[in-house]
Amino acid sequence: MPRVVILRWGHRPQRDARLTSHVALAARAFGAAGLILSDTNDAKIKDSIEKVTKEWGGPFFFKMGIPWKRAVHGWRVRGGLVVHLTAYGENVETSDVMGKIKASGKDVLVIVGCQKVPGEFFSDAVSDFNVAVGNQPHSECASLAVFLDRFFEGKELTRRFENTHLEIIPQVRGKKIANG
Amino acid sequence: MPRVVILRWGHRPQRDARLTSHVALAARAFGAAGLILSDTNDAKIKDSIEKVTKEWGGPFFFKMGIPWKRAVHGWRVRGGLVVHLTAYGENVETSDVMGKIKASGKDVLVIVGCQKVPGEFFSDAVSDFNVAVGNQPHSECASLAVFLDRFFEGKELTRRFENTHLEIIPQVRGKKIANG
Repeated sequence: MPRVVILRWGHRPQRDARLTSHVALAARAFGAAGLILSDTNDAKIKDSIEKVTKEWGGPFFFKMGIPWKRAVHGWRVRGGLVVHLTAYGENVETSDVMGKIKASGKDVLVIVGCQKVPGEFFSDAVSDFNVAVGNQPHSECASLAVFLDRFFEGKELTRRFENTHLEIIPQVRGKKIANG
Repeated sequence: MPRVVILRWGHRPQRDARLTSHVALAARAFGAAGLILSDTNDAKIKDSIEKVTKEWGGPFFFKMGIPWKRAVHGWRVRGGLVVHLTAYGENVETSDVMGKIKASGKDVLVIVGCQKVPGEFFSDAVSDFNVAVGNQPHSECASLAVFLDRFFEGKELTRRFENTHLEIIPQVRGKKIANG
């Protein structure tokens, strides 16, 4: 199974704290190997995500402060694909862009912007594909989740995490948590 | 096509503003008919979502201040299903819960919590199904998006909105917006 890592660009500490937390939680829950918070630091988010991973299992890494150019360059040098999620890109439903990404068999770095992104994100110097999970004004958290669900074809929702201390046992009614 | 409406419960003005906005944007972008912000009012969010709908098209309604019990009761009286999205519920990938919901052919009210929800949300007095988009701590915005993508089987991403003033023309590279 290819490895998927999320690059979160444009995070503004405080203002974007909860959204970036949700992006990171979605990344973990939907099968990504980790998230890079680029160009800035936010120790509070790092702590909260690492706490979730410690309690609910991993592996899932959270790195921060890496310049986006370095992260993208390093990824490409190692032969990985770069996908830029944007409402302006090729529609994941009406085009064959997802098929092409999967057919490559390559690891994928998914760039998830927050504010207006630099124009170069759209260019082939940065992204192999510009992918739109629908061409509507959207939530990057929602787009990322659907992208990962389609990329992993739902298998990510059956994944057993490692080193779990807490685990939900699915129920028709009510709540059940196993402590291990 | 069945009608899907989102009931957003537990919104705290200011604190949850951006997340609820993203939930509403995801609801609109992924095919819901509208969103009910229950038990509270937040005129700022209503304005921003209605502005998006005015510019990018609809139909998509935003109602607020309706007590959740009344909304749920009214929905059930009219023969609709109520789905409670929760990490504790039946896994949408490993169970047949989505199949059952679709097979009913009924309109669906999707309850999306924000903080800890009342225990009765899990009971058959409120919900017909408790659905988990993965049994991991999660983002309600991410869960809602994947739920809708699977419910509408991707067709929601091809929908043409009505009365659009702005429309994105998907591109392999760059941005293109049509003004109409």
